[in-house]
Amino acid sequence: MSTAAPILLTPGPLTTSARTRQAMMVDWGSWDDRFNQLTASLCEQLLAILNGAASHHCVPLQGSGTFAVEAAIGTLVPRDGKVLVLINGAYGKRLAKICEVLGRSFSTFETAEDEPTTAADVNRLLRADADITHVALIHCETSTGILNPLAEIAQVVAQHGKRLIIDAMSSFGALPVDAQKIPFDALIAASGKCLEGVPGMGFVFARKDSLTAAAGNSHSLAMDLYDQHAYMMKTGQWRFTPPTHVVAALHEALLQYHEEGGLPARHARYAANCQALMEEMGKLGLRSFLPAAIQAPIIATFHAPQDPRYQFKEFYERVKAKGYILYPGKLTQVETFRVGCIGHVSPDEMRQAVAAVGDVLREMEVLEI
Amino acid sequence: MSTAAPILLTPGPLTTSARTRQAMMVDWGSWDDRFNQLTASLCEQLLAILNGAASHHCVPLQGSGTFAVEAAIGTLVPRDGKVLVLINGAYGKRLAKICEVLGRSFSTFETAEDEPTTAADVNRLLRADADITHVALIHCETSTGILNPLAEIAQVVAQHGKRLIIDAMSSFGALPVDAQKIPFDALIAASGKCLEGVPGMGFVFARKDSLTAAAGNSHSLAMDLYDQHAYMMKTGQWRFTPPTHVVAALHEALLQYHEEGGLPARHARYAANCQALMEEMGKLGLRSFLPAAIQAPIIATFHAPQDPRYQFKEFYERVKAKGYILYPGKLTQVETFRVGCIGHVSPDEMRQAVAAVGDVLREMEVLEI
Repeated sequence: MSTAAPILLTPGPLTTSARTRQAMMVDWGSWDDRFNQLTASLCEQLLAILNGAASHHCVPLQGSGTFAVEAAIGTLVPRDGKVLVLINGAYGKRLAKICEVLGRSFSTFETAEDEPTTAADVNRLLRADADITHVALIHCETSTGILNPLAEIAQVVAQHGKRLIIDAMSSFGALPVDAQKIPFDALIAASGKCLEGVPGMGFVFARKDSLTAAAGNSHSLAMDLYDQHAYMMKTGQWRFTPPTHVVAALHEALLQYHEEGGLPARHARYAANCQALMEEMGKLGLRSFLPAAIQAPIIATFHAPQDPRYQFKEFYERVKAKGYILYPGKLTQVETFRVGCIGHVSPDEMRQAVAAVGDVLREMEVLEI
Repeated sequence: MSTAAPILLTPGPLTTSARTRQAMMVDWGSWDDRFNQLTASLCEQLLAILNGAASHHCVPLQGSGTFAVEAAIGTLVPRDGKVLVLINGAYGKRLAKICEVLGRSFSTFETAEDEPTTAADVNRLLRADADITHVALIHCETSTGILNPLAEIAQVVAQHGKRLIIDAMSSFGALPVDAQKIPFDALIAASGKCLEGVPGMGFVFARKDSLTAAAGNSHSLAMDLYDQHAYMMKTGQWRFTPPTHVVAALHEALLQYHEEGGLPARHARYAANCQALMEEMGKLGLRSFLPAAIQAPIIATFHAPQDPRYQFKEFYERVKAKGYILYPGKLTQVETFRVGCIGHVSPDEMRQAVAAVGDVLREMEVLEI
C-alpha cells in the first residue's frame, strides 16, 4: 500500500492516517442501509464532540467548508435579517462576501490581523445597531492562526438576544466548545481539518428550533440545510449524491479520534506539535507573527527571513524535496509563511520538519533571519 | 488491499476499479504545483472527450452533480432570463425546482416518463414564447434510462437563437457529444458516473463567451462558475478547498478510460452490459419499462413482478447478499426496479447478477412475473 508523501503541514487538506485512506477502498451504495448507518453514526459522533445532541442537529453537506458556511448563512439568516461580521483575516472577509452575494444585509467590524475581536467590541456594536439579528465569527482565523474569544463573545450575543454563527472550520475537534454552555445557532466545520478526514464535505451544527424555523429561507436548492436535514430524517439518505468515500474516511477518522482519547488528546497532541514547532523555529531565529497568548495550536505564521537570498518559492520547493509541504502566508502587509500543526503528525515529525527548514536555509545561504 | 464488494449496479456512485481507489491513498497539498497540474490535466482530458477545447471551458466544482447543475443555471442564466425546462422524469423536475429556488423565470414542458421530448415540441414552444432565453434538457433521464434526442433539440434551440443547458450527468463519457457539432452553452456531468471515478465533484463545460459574459449573475459565492474559472486561470488552484482525493481518483479513472479506448470502447462495453442484462432478464420473464429504441445503455428500468410474494425490500436484500446492489424504481405510477449498466463491470458480471436475481425470485417463490 502506498502511503502519503510528503507530509502536509497545511491547515487542511492535511496528512491523514493510512487507516483513514484505506477506508476509501470500498465502493458504497448511496441508497444502501449500510451507508445510511454510516451517515447516522457520523452525525451522532460529531454531535457528541460538542455535547450538542440535546440542542442541535448535525447537517452534513457535500462540498468544501465554504459551501457549508454559505449554506448556514443562507439557511439560518432570514432574508430580512442583518449580520454583523467580525473580521480579522481572510476568512472573516469571506463571510462578508457571502452575505453580499446572498443579498443579506450586513455590517462589518474589522480588527488588525494580530488583534482578536473582543466581547466589549461586540457589546458596543450590538448596542449601536438594533437591526442586527445575527453575529458571524471566525473561531480560529486560519490566515494567521489567531484565536478569537468565542465564549465571551457568545455570552454577549446571547445577552442581546441575538444569534451567533461560528465558523469553526480549523478549530472543531481540537479546541473545546460545549453547546450547552456556549449559545450558538450554527457552528460549521469540515471533514478535512482537525478530525483528520479527507476533504469533500462540511457539516453544520444547527440549533434545532432555528433550523425548524428556517424553511424557505435558502437562496439555493443544493445548499438548503433545512431541506437537507428534513430529507435525511425522513429517508436516512443524503438528498443528493453523497461523496461516499469521503464519508467513509471521516467515519474511520472519527473512530481513531476516539481511540486517541477524543478532544483532550487531540488538543494535547496539536499543542505539543505547536510547542515543538515554536521552540525549534525559535532556535533558527524565525519569529512567530502572533504573541503566544492569542496563538491557537492549529497553524502558526512566521515572518519571512529578511535576507535577500530568501525567496518563498525556492524555500518551499527545497523543503518539499525533503518531505514536508509548508503553506504560504496570507497577509498583505507583511511577508510571512505558515506551518500547520494539525493532521496525523507528531511533535517528533514537527522537529524533523524544522530541521529540514534549517538545512534549507543553510543551503540557500539565508543568514539574515 | 481490500476491494469493493458487493458490486454496485447503480447509476453512480458505482463500482470503480481498484486502481482508481488506490489513487486516493496519497494526500495532496491543495496549493501544491503537482496538484494544480493534476487539475489542469483533468480539465484538458475532459474537454477532449467532447472535442470542446476550442469553444468551451471546463469548470470543475466541489459537491455532487446537482451542485454543478445549480451552478450552471445560476451562473449562465442572467437574472432576467427565462428557462424552458423539458421534463420526463425526476431529474427534469429537479431542474425546474432549481429555477424556482433561484428565482429565475421558467416554464416547463412535461411528457410521460416513457416519451422523449421531440425537436418539434421544442420548436413549437420556442415559437410560442419569445421571452425564453435558455432551454434546459436532461440527456439521459436516470429515472427510467430514457434517452432524449439531444442533437435534434440542440439544432432547433440554435435556430431560434436560444441557449441550451444540458444535464448529461449519466451519459457523459459513454454517449457521444461533439461540442463542434452540437451547440450548447453548458453541459454538466460529474466524477462518479460513466468516467468511473468516485463521487464528490462535478464539472461544467461552459461556452467561453457565455462564461465571460456571466460575471455577477450568480446567486451564490461557492457556486459561481465565473469566479471559479477566473480564479483557476489566474492561480492554477481551486478557489476553495478541492476534494483532493476525489480529483486524484478521477484523474486515474481518466487514464484508464483512455487505455480502454476512450468513448467508443466505454460505450461499447456499456451497450454490451445493457444487452446482456436485457437478454438474461427477458429469459426470467422480467419486462423492460422502456422500448429498446429509447433505452440508453446507462440504466434500465424493469416492471416489478406481479406476484404478491414479491416485495422490493426483501428482493433487494437477498440480491445484495449474493453480491449485487440493485437500485429502486423512481416512478410514481408503476412499480419498478432499476439496474445500472455503468461502472467497472463487464457483460459477464451482468449475467452473473441476473443469475442471482433468478435465484432470489425462486427462493422467494415469486412465480407470476
